[in-house]
Amino acid sequence: MIKGVYRAYSSSANLGPGFDVMAVALNAYHDDVEVKVTTPGSRHVEVRFYGEFSTGIAPEKSTVMLAAKELLSRTGICADVEVSVTKGIPVGKGLGSSGASAAGIVRALNDLLGLELGESEEVLIAGEGERASAGVPHYDNVAASLHGWLTIVFKGRPGIEVRSYRVRATFVIAAPNLATPPSKTEVMRSVIPRVVNLGDVVANQGNLAALVAGLLLGDLALAGKGMEDHIVVPARAKYIPCFYWARDAAMNAGALGFTLSGAGPSTIALVPSEAVAKEVSRAVKEAYKACGISADVVIARPAPGVLRID
Amino acid sequence: MIKGVYRAYSSSANLGPGFDVMAVALNAYHDDVEVKVTTPGSRHVEVRFYGEFSTGIAPEKSTVMLAAKELLSRTGICADVEVSVTKGIPVGKGLGSSGASAAGIVRALNDLLGLELGESEEVLIAGEGERASAGVPHYDNVAASLHGWLTIVFKGRPGIEVRSYRVRATFVIAAPNLATPPSKTEVMRSVIPRVVNLGDVVANQGNLAALVAGLLLGDLALAGKGMEDHIVVPARAKYIPCFYWARDAAMNAGALGFTLSGAGPSTIALVPSEAVAKEVSRAVKEAYKACGISADVVIARPAPGVLRID
Repeated sequence: MIKGVYRAYSSSANLGPGFDVMAVALNAYHDDVEVKVTTPGSRHVEVRFYGEFSTGIAPEKSTVMLAAKELLSRTGICADVEVSVTKGIPVGKGLGSSGASAAGIVRALNDLLGLELGESEEVLIAGEGERASAGVPHYDNVAASLHGWLTIVFKGRPGIEVRSYRVRATFVIAAPNLATPPSKTEVMRSVIPRVVNLGDVVANQGNLAALVAGLLLGDLALAGKGMEDHIVVPARAKYIPCFYWARDAAMNAGALGFTLSGAGPSTIALVPSEAVAKEVSRAVKEAYKACGISADVVIARPAPGVLRID
Repeated sequence: MIKGVYRAYSSSANLGPGFDVMAVALNAYHDDVEVKVTTPGSRHVEVRFYGEFSTGIAPEKSTVMLAAKELLSRTGICADVEVSVTKGIPVGKGLGSSGASAAGIVRALNDLLGLELGESEEVLIAGEGERASAGVPHYDNVAASLHGWLTIVFKGRPGIEVRSYRVRATFVIAAPNLATPPSKTEVMRSVIPRVVNLGDVVANQGNLAALVAGLLLGDLALAGKGMEDHIVVPARAKYIPCFYWARDAAMNAGALGFTLSGAGPSTIALVPSEAVAKEVSRAVKEAYKACGISADVVIARPAPGVLRID
């Protein structure tokens, strides 16, 4: 029997115009994934959840279970796997909670079994785990949690390609305390328009180019301007109480850009400094309070990919 | 009377997924714009075209005339302007010929009249000149010719914003010798779909992120992968004889990416080295020849913005 404990960080997908292609790993929260592997085995996988945010997770239908089974079946490895996940990432908030757990188990098994799966393959397998929360595989959150920092995912021939870039930036994450509806991610994917006007495509592409250039070159004012999305966020924001109040409060307090984190309801603001981060935190919290909603607000920075901690 | 001569380089817009938001200035060709300004004057503008590619240009309806008049009317300057353009950029090939002339006159007047127009304003005015060739203003080519290198244009509040980044790359430009239909750019804009499937938007956005990251960080293999477009190029390529033959030939000869230059029919290939550039040049020329078309093929590098040369 071999074992290890792996830490996977929360993440924020899209950053506005980067729907399904961009995400950033964030040190705001993390899951710890303890894995015991016995070989040879019968591909029996057992998953347990612990910690503050474990309530209501069905282990059998979790991303961890799906991702572990996907990995064993793809690689043909006959192992028994026992997983204990300590959930430190709030669930259903748009902070990549399910993706982080999937990233943790995939990296753990890759590492402990010496599989030498490549970056893209890790992301593909962990992305399959996301079927559990979104109904379809998607790769943005898992790519960020797996490989850290700012990640870009794009279609390769075949499969997908992943790039991870270490960037410097400070963000303010606000998670409003709302009841998370069942299948939240799936529902929030269903509200996105299936077809998009060319004008919105062009507007989004201009912003995305500005966002990528701004983050990679450390021009955060430019990156903030590029965070405005014309396709997905307008469709989703209708379902997020007080989103525009929070946005206006953040921008007035000095945020460079503000958008939904993943499918929401959490929001993410890009800020130019620690001092402004505090101002923005206060302003967003106040805006939600004035709206009758309490919100957990944290300052976060880009985080590394999955780390082995024991 | 004050005068000066300004050189404006050719450009390639879009680079695949960057429709209307991205372009690169290229040292393959240039226009020289000689300007004489008399103040005070009556806003009389006179334009003459000279050189190899001046045949058939109607000065009164040219981008140069439109851009000059736009500038005088916006700034309220009462000057008489006399312009002589030596056209070195082939017209109607997708190489930003009309945009370069517009860029040249706008920079010349800004400079000679000491107007201190900002980057975005120069682009807005020169973009108005593009109505002459495209029926609508657009900014990608003029931004590249005005400010040089790789340029990104995105919507600001209000107006537009422009960024220019010096990048290192080698390109192969192939201009097939086809009769250019009247209003080519306008027609090639009309064939683009007005609405786009979300799946194609996501595919394009992933590629655009890869393209920007690749060019800015000098990862040319990544940039080449990002040059595949899912929206505009497939719609336009149907009207470009032998485009896919040329593409396959270029890729087989070692090109990293291959797409239409602007609205075509010229193509642009990104190559990893001077040696591969020669191989790709030969291969593309051969492919067109096998297709019964002669093509002018040149190796080009990113060029600076408008230069005063006299």
